[in-house]
Formats: sequence, C-alpha cells, structure tokens
Amino acid sequence: MIVQKYKDMLQGKSVIRQLSEFATQRGNEIGYENVFDYSLGNPSVPAPQQFTDTMIDMLQNRNPMELHGYSQSLGIPAVRDKVAESLNRRFGMHYTGNHIFMTTGAAGAIAHAVRCVSEPGDEILTFAPYFPEYGPYINLTGAVLKVVPADTKSFQINFDAFEEMLTEKVAAVLINTPNNPSGMVYSAETLRKLAGIMTDKAAQYGHDIFLISDEPYREIVFAGVDSPYPSKFYANTLSCYSFSKSLSLPGERIGYVAVNPECTDAEYISAMCSQISRGTGHNCPPSIIQLAVAQVLDLTSDLSVYETNMNILYKELIDLGFECVKPGGTFYIFPKALEEDAVAFSEKAKKYDLIVVPSDTFGVKGYIRLAYCIDTEKVERSLEAFRKFVKNEY
Amino acid sequence: MIVQKYKDMLQGKSVIRQLSEFATQRGNEIGYENVFDYSLGNPSVPAPQQFTDTMIDMLQNRNPMELHGYSQSLGIPAVRDKVAESLNRRFGMHYTGNHIFMTTGAAGAIAHAVRCVSEPGDEILTFAPYFPEYGPYINLTGAVLKVVPADTKSFQINFDAFEEMLTEKVAAVLINTPNNPSGMVYSAETLRKLAGIMTDKAAQYGHDIFLISDEPYREIVFAGVDSPYPSKFYANTLSCYSFSKSLSLPGERIGYVAVNPECTDAEYISAMCSQISRGTGHNCPPSIIQLAVAQVLDLTSDLSVYETNMNILYKELIDLGFECVKPGGTFYIFPKALEEDAVAFSEKAKKYDLIVVPSDTFGVKGYIRLAYCIDTEKVERSLEAFRKFVKNEY
Repeated sequence: MIVQKYKDMLQGKSVIRQLSEFATQRGNEIGYENVFDYSLGNPSVPAPQQFTDTMIDMLQNRNPMELHGYSQSLGIPAVRDKVAESLNRRFGMHYTGNHIFMTTGAAGAIAHAVRCVSEPGDEILTFAPYFPEYGPYINLTGAVLKVVPADTKSFQINFDAFEEMLTEKVAAVLINTPNNPSGMVYSAETLRKLAGIMTDKAAQYGHDIFLISDEPYREIVFAGVDSPYPSKFYANTLSCYSFSKSLSLPGERIGYVAVNPECTDAEYISAMCSQISRGTGHNCPPSIIQLAVAQVLDLTSDLSVYETNMNILYKELIDLGFECVKPGGTFYIFPKALEEDAVAFSEKAKKYDLIVVPSDTFGVKGYIRLAYCIDTEKVERSLEAFRKFVKNEY
Repeated sequence: MIVQKYKDMLQGKSVIRQLSEFATQRGNEIGYENVFDYSLGNPSVPAPQQFTDTMIDMLQNRNPMELHGYSQSLGIPAVRDKVAESLNRRFGMHYTGNHIFMTTGAAGAIAHAVRCVSEPGDEILTFAPYFPEYGPYINLTGAVLKVVPADTKSFQINFDAFEEMLTEKVAAVLINTPNNPSGMVYSAETLRKLAGIMTDKAAQYGHDIFLISDEPYREIVFAGVDSPYPSKFYANTLSCYSFSKSLSLPGERIGYVAVNPECTDAEYISAMCSQISRGTGHNCPPSIIQLAVAQVLDLTSDLSVYETNMNILYKELIDLGFECVKPGGTFYIFPKALEEDAVAFSEKAKKYDLIVVPSDTFGVKGYIRLAYCIDTEKVERSLEAFRKFVKNEY
C-alpha cells in the first residue's frame, strides 16, 4: 500500500512556493520585470568563473573513469582534507579530513547529523524565526522538532524560553546563523551563553546534547559584523554547510558535515554518517562536483550585491516607519508588518506587485520576510511601490 | 548521545571491500597488473564522449545561474519528460514526465521507492543471490528485508519458497534483473509467473503488493538473450534505475524511479517521493548531471568488453569442470565453487592472486562471484592462474 503519511503531505503547500508561483503568474500578465518578487531565496549572482574553468579543465584533461568513478561514501579523501585545511585556516579549528563528511547540500548534512545524534522520539530544539523546511527535515527522521519562541528585540536567542524547553528529552539544538529569515548573525556573547546552558544541562541530565549548526549563509556577512564560528564555542558541534549560496550552486547539491574534533566520539561520526547514507540512499555526492568545489574552497561568487540591496531596503523601510533590526548577513530582511496580521499585510502588498512572505511560516507572527537576492535595479524600482503601499493607499 | 546502532554498524566490514583492499595491498607488493582482481563491480570503460562534450558545452555556453540553479525536487521537468519518452520508445510504456522521479543513483531510487510503499515493520522480499547492500538499504528505512532462497538450477526464481514467504506482512518484492551476482536475466516466463502470484496474493490479502525493480544493469545484456522490461508484466511496479553502469558514471549519482502509469495512485507517487526526500536530505540530484544525461539517454558506453570477458571466462570455467549457468548480462559470473565451503575456496584462490568473492555474502552458499569489469588482457592472463589453481595445486 502506498504510505498515507507522504500522500497527506501533498496537501500542505509551502506558503513561499505559493507566493513564488503567484509572482510568476503575475509576471506572465504584466512582465516579470514589473513584479517585485521578494519571495524566494535563490542566489542571484553567477558561480565564480574559476568553478566553471575547473569543471571544463577536468572534463577535458582527466581520465573519465577516475573523474566519474565511485567516491568513498564519506567523500573523496583529498576533498575532505582540503575542506578541513580551509576551515582550520579560516577559523582556527583542528579538523582533519576524517572529521569531514561530504553531503548533498545542507539538507543532506542535516539529514545525517540529526540521525547521528538522535533516536526517534527525541526532541530537537530550534529557535524562531526559523527556516520552515526544518519541520519535515527533522520530523521525517523520527525526531521531533520543537520551536523556541523568538527574541523579537534582537533576533538573537530567547534564553528564558530556551532554558525552559531544554528538557531531558532534547538530543540536539539546531541553530542557523547567519539566519534565514531574520538576517541576524549570532554574536559571540549569544554563542557563549548558548554553550554554557547546554553544557550545564548536559551535565545535569548525564547525556550529551549536540549542537547542529546550519551555516549555508556563512560567507554572506556585511561590513562591520562579527560572525563567530559556532563550533569554536561548544565541543559537541556538528557544522552543516552548503556551497549553494557562497558559490551560487544550489542545484549541484554539495555541502558537508564538519565534526568538531573535540566532540564525543569525534573519530566515529563521519563513518557513522556513511552508514546512515546507506539508508537515506545518499551514498556520496557527485564526484565531479566534489572535485571542483575543492579547487575553489576559499572563493565565493561576487556577493556584494546582497549588501548593496540590504542597505537600500533597510534605509527605505526605516524611512517609511517600519521597525526592523538591521541584517548582519544573508539576503533576507525581516521588518515588522504595519499591522498585526502579517498574512493580511502581505496579501495587501500584492496589489502593489510586492511579493513578500508573512512570518507565520517562520514560527513568529507579525513580520514579513523579503529575499533581496534580485537585481539592485529592481530593488530600486520597488521603493516607489513600497511608498505607495505604505503612504498613499494602505 | 550518538546513536549506537550506527556506531555498531562500523564493526561489520563488507567482505567485498575487504577483498578489494587485499587486492590493492597485494598489488603494492607484486604490481597491481599481476593481481587478478575480480572483487569489485566498477565499470571499466569510460563514459561516452558525448556525455563529456555535452557537459563542456553547457559549462561554456549556458547561463550559470540556470545551469546550477535549484531544480524542482522531483527533477528538472524537461529531463523527466525525456526519460519518459525514452522508456516509452524502448519498452512500449506510457510514462509521462510526471511518472519519473530523478534520484541520486539506484540507491537513492530504492530509498524513495521503499519508503513510498512500506511502513516500518513491513516486510520486503528479495531473492537470493542478492546484492548485499539491500540489507542496510531496506532495513534502515524501517522495513524488514527477507530473503527467498535461491533457485540454484537456473538462478531464476524459487517460486515454492516465494509463495510460502509472501505473507500478508509483505509490502513489496524487490527484484534485480539482470542480476548481481548471478548475471542472470529474468525471462518473460519468470516475470509472468511472479506477477501472477503477486496479483493473486494481493487480492487475497486485500492490499497492494508493490514490485520494486532494481535495474542498473538493464543495458548490459548479451547476444541472444531476451531482457523483458519488468514493469510490462505488473502494474504496481516502481522501476529503479541508475546510469552508473550504462554510462560509466557511478560517482555522479544519477538515476530515477519510473512509476508504472497503471499503478495505484500513480499520479501521486513522484510527488510523494519528493516529500520523502525532505527527510532523506536528498532533495534533487545535481542539476548539471541531470541535464547532461538527458542528452545521452539512448547512448551507452562501449559495453562490448563485458561480453567478450564473459565468453572467455565462461569457456575456461566450464573446461576446468566448474558448474556455471551462463550469464545473460551484467559483468558478473557465478560459478559453483569446487568445494562446499566457498569462503575456504576463495581463500585458497588468493594464493594464485585470484581475488573472487564467496557467495555467502549474497545469501547463498557454495558459489563464487567474479566481477569481470577489467581489461580483457588481464582476463586472458588470469586463465593460467585458474588452471594452476584447479588442476595442479587445488
């Protein structure tokens, strides 16, 4: 029999996806260039030319049987070594290749990290506002996602709520910094306090509590913002990374889990991930993509457009009277809606061809998310629509 | 806490992997060219030049944001359409793109197909001899793999044992034709009888029993052998395919599930797979690889070496007194060992630098598997080692 659980999931349609479809449809009517589509978090800059050149060079010059051959299920050893070296150089860590497990993007990384450190029925905590895919990502492993209410003042962490929810049932805490949707970067102070509480509670309960740190936006941090590396603050950390945003390769599904060398059973966790991958059907990420990213580990796409767009939008939103914490990174901004009901507010914005996502889908009410990974020229043209929306006709 | 189940799995080392490591080690001593390494099923011919040319062309000429952008989680629509068309043309099926779900190889296909049609605790039947990875592949989904004893006369299906084991608990039957390790191709008669029994039992139990057909060797079939398409015989069939062997791309992890349009809820199954993929962390296979295989769907690598090697080995093994059913396809041959204990027999073969896999790992005793995806020149040189092993010193 087909499994009803998955069939039932087909009913629930992602709000973001629906808005994006609306934007496409509206684009068919008035020209997509006239729709201010802030719905989707898709990179808007190309991959670095060096990535393309590396791919072509390998295809032209390498033995295809080596190039396209099976990699070990943990990833290609030389690639894992290079990832470790790059992280050590950049963040003062002490990884070896054995602490790196190559995955199909951050989704693959989370799927393996969660299974490594939680049994079905265990709780995983995350913090609102949060990436809504965490729900199915976590719950389909058998663990149970619980959402700690937001600290809406700073979009750092609501520690009172966290301490209350960090019960004995919690196997792991899932953070996302820089954060989708708030654009906030966790400060060293936040990470230190988080680590302190987790250490105390783990000692109290007599079992490890792991930190799963989802960092696809790690490289998109704006001027003057300090972006500390979470694993530096807490030994039992599994860092989940994707090259989707830094190299603009979301379709190529490449990322990794980096296991803190000081964590419990650090020497086993990559190998455990490769056992898990037999059940998830993942096995290893595509070999040519592994080899290519290993050649451009310290590069990024030209990410400057995101900061340019953020500054334009932030200034205008503040001028228009929005309350908004200034993003420290990512390509999202998360202002407070001008009425209590963010769903109604986003619906009204559509009349001005402004497509924004109400925050309910991110686990907090009353805000909207704008994904400003679009051309700056379009951001500028959208300002007039915001003005009309807010001043004249709202 | 880290999960003990996966840590425990690290103890169990694959027999095939151990033999392959022995072969590599022995190669370091006497030169790998002198080790007759029949352990691993890795393609020994390069990908078609057209695949490489297509990749280079896309990298040089296509917009990198489109090329490397997110694909839909079911796969790129144009790719799914092309896969459907190719299957329809070749096998007289009536797929549309909606019946195709793109995956990371056959492992990914099986991971999704099994989750679609079985709940944890349900039984999945397969037939000995079988690919040993089916154990973790199936059991880690929560379902339970049960192995039907072999029909050692023909390596088709032991129907008496099958009927006995096809109880109400069985959600699906997993077949692999052409078969690893036997090299046999299921005949139309076998598939018809299989379908008949499954249809009767499904009616008797009042629930669907799905056929999951794992077909990575579909394109490696030898002269004069009929290789019927299993889905033609049974409506509730999910065909799992990988391009690893046909295009020699095992590291690039690309394949699909093809849902028979006549099966129960056929219109939902691809979409259900994409829900499942949120939990497995799969999401979608790499976009550039999807686009490239779509351009070479009806091509294969030059696979003729496998038939050449099979004929040389088969003749010699028969001449030397082995009992052996002649393979119809794949790059495996599965002769009966010359003593009851295939493990001991394989161990003795090592003295002649013949690396063969004892059949115990495939769920049947007393046979050995030779993976002859190696150069023909090496196969020819190995014959003298077989002769010495069998005639002089065994």
